[in-house]
Amino acid sequence: MPFIQIHLAEGRTVEQKREIASAVTADVARIARVSPDRVKIYFFDIKKEDMASGGVLRADEG
Amino acid sequence: MPFIQIHLAEGRTVEQKREIASAVTADVARIARVSPDRVKIYFFDIKKEDMASGGVLRADEG
Amino acid sequence: MPFIQIHLAEGRTVEQKREIASAVTADVARIARVSPDRVKIYFFDIKKEDMASGGVLRADEG
Amino acid sequence: MPFIQIHLAEGRTVEQKREIASAVTADVARIARVSPDRVKIYFFDIKKEDMASGGVLRADEG
Amino acid sequence: MPFIQIHLAEGRTVEQKREIASAVTADVARIARVSPDRVKIYFFDIKKEDMASGGVLRADEG
Amino acid sequence: MPFIQIHLAEGRTVEQKREIASAVTADVARIARVSPDRVKIYFFDIKKEDMASGGVLRADEG
Repeated sequence: MPFIQIHLAEGRTVEQKREIASAVTADVARIARVSPDRVKIYFFDIKKEDMASGGVLRADEG
Repeated sequence: MPFIQIHLAEGRTVEQKREIASAVTADVARIARVSPDRVKIYFFDIKKEDMASGGVLRADEG
Repeated sequence: MPFIQIHLAEGRTVEQKREIASAVTADVARIARVSPDRVKIYFFDIKKEDMASGGVLRADEG
Repeated sequence: MPFIQIHLAEGRTVEQKREIASAVTADVARIARVSPDRVKIYFFDIKKEDMASGGVLRADEG
Repeated sequence: MPFIQIHLAEGRTVEQKREIASAVTADVARIARVSPDRVKIYFFDIKKEDMASGGVLRADEG
Repeated sequence: MPFIQIHLAEGRTVEQKREIASAVTADVARIARVSPDRVKIYFFDIKKEDMASGGVLRADEG
């Protein structure tokens, strides 16, 4: 029952999420030896004003 | 200080969240023996294009 | 595909988690109208030195 | 590589998040003795209908 | 700055986590078009008594 | 009701967590204009074999 939360900066397309879901599920199922249908993924789109690195919002980076 | 994060596919009404918050708080307070006012719940609405099972987005399921 | 993360102060028994899992799943399935087998719950035991309220660790409360 | 998720009731401005990111990063870097640029923060705005305390939605509080 | 939390039933080896980290990072970097060094992954080992599906703890499944 | 999850590489002392909890709560309460006692913090100690950057486990870094 692997459960995976993927946080990405907003702007990715549904097609990109579809490909990520497919590839990541295949990897985790193969390596952790679980049935792919037990792998659950949730995506979270994060705005650039809602992520910071080094104390600086992504929205403020040059 | 139980803290509960509930992720649901989008589309639930405020009335459904109100009932879930009430029922889940009562259960956890009773069984874990804490005061209900210490139970905190956060809901996250997840779009069907943001959840995948078996490598397939919910939005793509037949 | 409701996914629920329940954080509890350490010390609850497996029997308490068993009862919480059963009761919370029944609530969410009934109110959100999903099949119970789609409800997934993960518990996290948190040490009292790893939780704070009002800036004070639970381990330090009188 | 400290990773911090901050959930706030919706309504905070970007300026408030900018100040929180700066202050929290400085604190954690200084106290945990890591380089500030390794501190990552994600903010989550939570609607008042999506948070509950004591079994009551924040949106329903008097 | 993709941030990924992977929850697995306890029992996976460090070698399995090493392979998952490598494969998942390569997938997400390629598909989301970010530099691999921006992809951060955290693993959480979950005991079988701390996960439930359908209201039943994994530890109690037949 | 700010809720903050702080993930740190294992090895920090209780005294460091005590100081972080105090400082972060003061910052968030002041900037977000909430009462400090509404600020809740949970710490998660992450093993170096459970965090990866750039596809490489922290435990494997030179």
